Amino acid sequence: MILEHAVLNVVTGRECEFEQAFAEAQLIISSMAGYQSHALMKCHELGNRYLLLVQWASLEDHTIGFRNSPEYEQWKKKLHDFYEPFPEVHHYSTVESASSPMGF
Amino acid sequence: MILEHAVLNVVTGRECEFEQAFAEAQLIISSMAGYQSHALMKCHELGNRYLLLVQWASLEDHTIGFRNSPEYEQWKKKLHDFYEPFPEVHHYSTVESASSPMGF
Repeated sequence: MILEHAVLNVVTGRECEFEQAFAEAQLIISSMAGYQSHALMKCHELGNRYLLLVQWASLEDHTIGFRNSPEYEQWKKKLHDFYEPFPEVHHYSTVESASSPMGF
Repeated sequence: MILEHAVLNVVTGRECEFEQAFAEAQLIISSMAGYQSHALMKCHELGNRYLLLVQWASLEDHTIGFRNSPEYEQWKKKLHDFYEPFPEVHHYSTVESASSPMGF
């Protein structure tokens, strides 16, 4: 598993519009080969900041499969205008992880 | 649920030492009230970059409960020397999320 990670700074005042666009756009990414899960999260400290996390089966499922697909053009069209500046996207693999034994 | 998020830039050359220190330090955070889960992840594109994600039951479990605890002093002692620059820590709540129906 590989985690795609992007901190998204959305143009101030367009946060609601962005969330609506993402609600539609997530159907695109969810249908791609190698897609496993995703989350869009909103920052508590900075009102226009979001975090996008997408789990892919492999790095290439994102960097080659998705980014070279016609679906990526739709994704871009729906979302890329909201970002200022354009986000850095990086990929991460787990080194350590654990969960509470309480089952949370 | 609240997600603590920090991008960690580790002093170049100290990555292995950091990973060993984190393997011990994670026992501290895992024992705290409100802790739910955590992951330390390593970046594919930048060799000294890591991502720390910690799920807490509430924002205050992290910002008050953990940061004001004696355990936080141990956590700092084990880890804070590895970071350059010192990381920004933010907190996020889920706006949208989904998983593959394939059960990944």
